[in-house]
Amino acid sequence: MKLLLKNATIIPVTEREGALRTFVGSVGIVGNRIVLVTTDAAEAEHFAEGGCRTIDCTGKVLMPGLINTHCHAAMTLQRNRADDIPLMAWLNDHIWPFEAKQTAEDIQLGMTLGMAEMVLGGITSFVDMYFEEDRCVETVEQMGMRAVLGCSYFDATIDQTLASAERAIEAARGKERIHISIAPHAPYTVSRENLIRGKRFAEEHGLPLMVHTAETQDEVKYVREKYDRTPVEFLDEAGLLDENTIAAHCVWVDEKDIATLAARGVTVSHNVHSNMKISSGAAPIDALMKGGATVTLGTDGSSSNNDLDLWEEMRTAAFLQKLTTMNPLTLHADDALRMATRNGARAMGYKEGELGVVAEGALADLILIDIEKPHLQPVADLVSDLVYCGKAADVETVIIDGRVVVENRRIAGLDLKTLYKEVGEAVARIESTR
Amino acid sequence: MKLLLKNATIIPVTEREGALRTFVGSVGIVGNRIVLVTTDAAEAEHFAEGGCRTIDCTGKVLMPGLINTHCHAAMTLQRNRADDIPLMAWLNDHIWPFEAKQTAEDIQLGMTLGMAEMVLGGITSFVDMYFEEDRCVETVEQMGMRAVLGCSYFDATIDQTLASAERAIEAARGKERIHISIAPHAPYTVSRENLIRGKRFAEEHGLPLMVHTAETQDEVKYVREKYDRTPVEFLDEAGLLDENTIAAHCVWVDEKDIATLAARGVTVSHNVHSNMKISSGAAPIDALMKGGATVTLGTDGSSSNNDLDLWEEMRTAAFLQKLTTMNPLTLHADDALRMATRNGARAMGYKEGELGVVAEGALADLILIDIEKPHLQPVADLVSDLVYCGKAADVETVIIDGRVVVENRRIAGLDLKTLYKEVGEAVARIESTR
Repeated sequence: MKLLLKNATIIPVTEREGALRTFVGSVGIVGNRIVLVTTDAAEAEHFAEGGCRTIDCTGKVLMPGLINTHCHAAMTLQRNRADDIPLMAWLNDHIWPFEAKQTAEDIQLGMTLGMAEMVLGGITSFVDMYFEEDRCVETVEQMGMRAVLGCSYFDATIDQTLASAERAIEAARGKERIHISIAPHAPYTVSRENLIRGKRFAEEHGLPLMVHTAETQDEVKYVREKYDRTPVEFLDEAGLLDENTIAAHCVWVDEKDIATLAARGVTVSHNVHSNMKISSGAAPIDALMKGGATVTLGTDGSSSNNDLDLWEEMRTAAFLQKLTTMNPLTLHADDALRMATRNGARAMGYKEGELGVVAEGALADLILIDIEKPHLQPVADLVSDLVYCGKAADVETVIIDGRVVVENRRIAGLDLKTLYKEVGEAVARIESTR
Repeated sequence: MKLLLKNATIIPVTEREGALRTFVGSVGIVGNRIVLVTTDAAEAEHFAEGGCRTIDCTGKVLMPGLINTHCHAAMTLQRNRADDIPLMAWLNDHIWPFEAKQTAEDIQLGMTLGMAEMVLGGITSFVDMYFEEDRCVETVEQMGMRAVLGCSYFDATIDQTLASAERAIEAARGKERIHISIAPHAPYTVSRENLIRGKRFAEEHGLPLMVHTAETQDEVKYVREKYDRTPVEFLDEAGLLDENTIAAHCVWVDEKDIATLAARGVTVSHNVHSNMKISSGAAPIDALMKGGATVTLGTDGSSSNNDLDLWEEMRTAAFLQKLTTMNPLTLHADDALRMATRNGARAMGYKEGELGVVAEGALADLILIDIEKPHLQPVADLVSDLVYCGKAADVETVIIDGRVVVENRRIAGLDLKTLYKEVGEAVARIESTR
């Protein structure tokens, strides 16, 4: 299977820092890899010889697919269920009763709806954290997305979750796009012993780990009182922090915590809309970047965002840092785009140059954007244009692992009307049995 | 001309406070007014008798068009021209040299592009503030939007601006959708004498006034040093603050300022993205609301936002208040929607019930939203759904003054391809003559 993306305006995102370059060229894909990136039209023609699907990308922007490093995709079922109310009422009266009635099939349905939203918005990879992930391996495989599925546990559920993780590992065997991960919920909901047990399980099976870290002031207070440490110090002492760990949120981290996160090679998942909406706080992203930490972007779940839109996360991440530092030079558009692509690839466990860039040898996870829209014209700076004005709906075509998953804003093989109907019925059933 | 919008899910936004109600019903329009809002299908059928265009809105949401109370629409020409750089370099090296080369035709072109973006995103009315507004009256009339065009001046340009305002008043005569306004730039760029002169001119001609107010800490410092007052105290003492004034930004206002703004009936235009992007600060919107001020939403210009998207302004306005107050109960989705509709109507000078609501007797400025999208499903709370997840691209149909201006995302009578070409040529010409 050969695919040529011809005459695109390419943002390769291959630069580690500074301004991102753009150029007009063509990209050749064989199987699931990019094998050619060229500005030479003759070379592109030569590639296409002997049978090759060609997409004319004239006037379109071609860039790496976006990578969402923290979400709870199945919670899409609970979107807008209980907004603008206090946290404990939200959990006690809405989220927990709903989840108690949810079946694995409901979770698959929520996952499918969440993936449909993500892929239509140019997200090609996501890192999930929820229950019944073993039951969702096939769901993700069918959608054609790339994912790290994090089996999440509290103290009470660690045994069943590790058993489910074993099943998930089996289910994902041979599925190159899907990886399994261990996901202890947080330092304030999982004991030190069970955090360590999860980490050992992850190491034994060669899996990454993810954990909510320093999300709220309450968490910092709890961990300080119980362990006399910050959440980052506590997790570090327990041996959870290394290059195989994603620490989600990191809102309340001090200078020493930042140095630790950077030194251990932990990936930070910044979830700016969620942190704002549920009043968690403003993460010190500028300081984390300057301190050498790898920062990526996540949407969090649909109950606290309320959508799965990385364009908005890029924009607001940049804008909020400019506000909290009171310096408009902080967090350039280029940085935001790097966070949402190549940095995200590192969080997913991919090596430099393997994902999140448009480069020969990289996996073919790519998106095409139509910039002939009033809100994207004129184009003075293409990266600023996309990061500060681009929208999920501007994504026209999505290629994952060399396969065209979205074309002209239609998802291959998915009937959305039927999906909405099934989602509506599932929600109605859950509500009626409360 | 009769128009029936049948079987829509209507959000009338008629409530002054609390949760906004929604219901399924039909809306009948005669000329430019809503004459019927009914849940009775027989009544709707009766209205349609004897010849009436009918739009079936089954499954669609019908709500008031959005009102953008502060923008510089023509600056769309300078979108993304110079982001992530210091303010003075931005002005000296980019904005001012560009504006010095700009012709009135360029400004009309920028205005048209800005309006195209706004109307496709469901904005039916806007309050503009720029130069050459007299030359833009016909441009706005042709697009079919409702607008207050603010003739903006510095000390050096007051004479020419007031002359241009006289021409603008003439040009707008008989055009019911277009109103002219006087717009002194700010307390730190216009002398007390010239602020008062502008206000007198406005009063003599029965015009509203708008002024940038307390946008930055530098402004507060300047006004304090020069007049020993806060910007609000200074403007109040000069007689500029009353129910005919829009104060844009109001980021740095204290308790006394808030009481003054509320007591004088001034409308505040909150521009949250602009305030974040150029590090102006976080306006105390919760305190302004609780203090009784009328708060509305504006996008500001495309150079500091960088788009004209009130869906994002609604969402971020709510999220940022939840963050700055560290209280997730602050600024409900319902409040954000009210700001962007009925409160905006008041800023435009319309009486209660005349604009910004779906009610019998109100002007027919309405939008239809397609909620059959993955990011808007399922619908647990329709207002939360739209405010927290809705996007400009979800707006399908836009009706202004009873006329269908956008249908299925196409603007009646506007060739966008030609517009992009003309915009590109204008920008290239301006750049080449620098």
